[in-house]
Amino acid sequence: MKRQVSPWSVHDLLGTPALEDLPTPALVIDRHALMHNLGLMASHVQAAGAALRPHAKTHKSADIAVLQMESGASGVCCAKLGEAQALFAAGLRAQMLITSPIVAREACARLSALLHAGANLMVCVDHPDACAPLSACVPEDSALLVVIDVDPGLRRTGVGNAAAARLVAERIADFANLRLTGVQFYCGMEQHMAPASARAASVAGRLDTLSQTIAALQDMGARDFLISGGGTGTFASDLEQGVLNEIQAGSYVFLDRHYTECDLAAPGGTAFRPALFVAARVISANTAGLATLDAGFKAFAADSGVPAILGGPHAGAGLHFMGDEHSLVVSGSQAFRRGEVLLLQPPHCDPTVNLYDAYHVFDSQGPMAIWPVTARGCSQ
Amino acid sequence: MKRQVSPWSVHDLLGTPALEDLPTPALVIDRHALMHNLGLMASHVQAAGAALRPHAKTHKSADIAVLQMESGASGVCCAKLGEAQALFAAGLRAQMLITSPIVAREACARLSALLHAGANLMVCVDHPDACAPLSACVPEDSALLVVIDVDPGLRRTGVGNAAAARLVAERIADFANLRLTGVQFYCGMEQHMAPASARAASVAGRLDTLSQTIAALQDMGARDFLISGGGTGTFASDLEQGVLNEIQAGSYVFLDRHYTECDLAAPGGTAFRPALFVAARVISANTAGLATLDAGFKAFAADSGVPAILGGPHAGAGLHFMGDEHSLVVSGSQAFRRGEVLLLQPPHCDPTVNLYDAYHVFDSQGPMAIWPVTARGCSQ
Repeated sequence: MKRQVSPWSVHDLLGTPALEDLPTPALVIDRHALMHNLGLMASHVQAAGAALRPHAKTHKSADIAVLQMESGASGVCCAKLGEAQALFAAGLRAQMLITSPIVAREACARLSALLHAGANLMVCVDHPDACAPLSACVPEDSALLVVIDVDPGLRRTGVGNAAAARLVAERIADFANLRLTGVQFYCGMEQHMAPASARAASVAGRLDTLSQTIAALQDMGARDFLISGGGTGTFASDLEQGVLNEIQAGSYVFLDRHYTECDLAAPGGTAFRPALFVAARVISANTAGLATLDAGFKAFAADSGVPAILGGPHAGAGLHFMGDEHSLVVSGSQAFRRGEVLLLQPPHCDPTVNLYDAYHVFDSQGPMAIWPVTARGCSQ
Repeated sequence: MKRQVSPWSVHDLLGTPALEDLPTPALVIDRHALMHNLGLMASHVQAAGAALRPHAKTHKSADIAVLQMESGASGVCCAKLGEAQALFAAGLRAQMLITSPIVAREACARLSALLHAGANLMVCVDHPDACAPLSACVPEDSALLVVIDVDPGLRRTGVGNAAAARLVAERIADFANLRLTGVQFYCGMEQHMAPASARAASVAGRLDTLSQTIAALQDMGARDFLISGGGTGTFASDLEQGVLNEIQAGSYVFLDRHYTECDLAAPGGTAFRPALFVAARVISANTAGLATLDAGFKAFAADSGVPAILGGPHAGAGLHFMGDEHSLVVSGSQAFRRGEVLLLQPPHCDPTVNLYDAYHVFDSQGPMAIWPVTARGCSQ
């Protein structure tokens, strides 16, 4: 019988200069796990006959967006116009869907500049009054693609029912340079529900508004509509239910601790792998069984609990935040060494990534690249 | 009887282009409140005969550090070496105390470069093994000022008792270019305790270790020691107890929501004023009584609850985070307008500031400056 060989993981570099000489805290990518995740999601979505438009709000990286386009993505999503500006400035030429409504006068000025620079954008609207300012941004002899944001009952953004969608669609039709292209439908409440069956059932219960909206828009003549939505939590059931024809998943690239705990088993049983870590260092270990790391609320977004230690000599050790710059690890059997570097899986990847300027990318050959967090801080 | 005139506040600009045309979310400073806070803390500390070394980890701003030095600060604190590097590079020439131990080989290389560039630094140590690497960083014919970090029982950093402090002091004495200058003592658990009397009592209960440590070091010949510590929560009782001779307060410059709720009434009864806000915008308001703002976990650190709305038509309205990019406000009597800008007091200022590249500074004359967040992201 063949001996099972574990795949390489970035934890194999613990204790080596490759990790110990990083300025900590630092974002670390396990490139093998990242590529595994990119390929796995692409193949799932392709097998279901849908399109994948990964959400760049997770990684904010032009380098990762390019990898996603190379694995067949139809484009990317950006949460905010500022992200699209940064990714375009970094050279990304993918079609970008801005998933939040663009409302401010100053934002319209930025949209206009980006469109005039040649960016291929799609925007979403959830109110008739949004249309005139958007139309005014569009360069002569071109058109702006627009999707109607449909609220699944989250009350965050979107039209609340088919009648409201129809009013928006009628207003869009008033402008020759706005082209209604589809709808967006994001079930934010369901993404972290567990088990998977509860998640699927809850999304299914929200599809009525979407179906009625699509029917209303088809009555108005709409055909071959983009129906874009979903996320890392719901993609499997979204594909199974077959209403969405484009998936907006983001976090699957990194698989944070919160998603690790959400029963994400995908079709076929192959799992996504944790691909993003924060390298943090023991800077004090004067109390037996405890060590202080140089990473606190400025190194992790703390909205979803604490980081996890998945590998190395302290795997499974508990962690507590100790303010803005520090956290405390409680040891198991292994003692801590001053200066030692640990790898921590972030509780929530998107807002954690947003704290850093760069990713340190490692594969089995060692350090292979430093990628900028291209749209870091671009929340506008 | 004279009519009471409210002082100007940045809330007076709500609804005007000065705020409505900001790219949101944006950090906003009320400069009158900031200057009030700077003066108030400086006068309290001066009246008690102590020194003030404000913590730059809160604002990370060379501009604000200069204002603090102009109001009599003895220097500034930095939580991490990276902050000191950024502030020095921006031209700040204050003496900077790095309040976290410097442990990594790569950090020592950065320390050495900064010292050789002429920075006036003070570092803290909590282990004898820290001394040799620090000594190796010091330029020829100069000396590095060192304080011993004393653990008040927090188990974060610091020596745990007088005997351990003595071992560190003995090791420091082995190096001609390290100069023991004092101790650091930060009671992190007490800063947010309320009421103020409980806070004072709890700190008083922790002073034994500090007093024993100081006595042990005096036995070894130490005189005129710096005894640096405290914070915005405890400064009043720290000054009253008179053990610390230097106060490291940071958050008083901005007064976040968490500190607002902590019974901070200072000697004399004059209160600190909220000086920092996040300008956020209504981007969707399709449900009566609710509005969605363009600010979520990427616009606020969420470790200490939700922001507060202190002024304007929606003062007192409740807020819920709705993910990385959005939050939901629940209205009172006033309806929300799409595009409207609100001012939100951050729950916790330090890690919120760390999310932004710039402060938009306003006073009663209108917009008066954009200050960079000089050390944004410099957690290394």
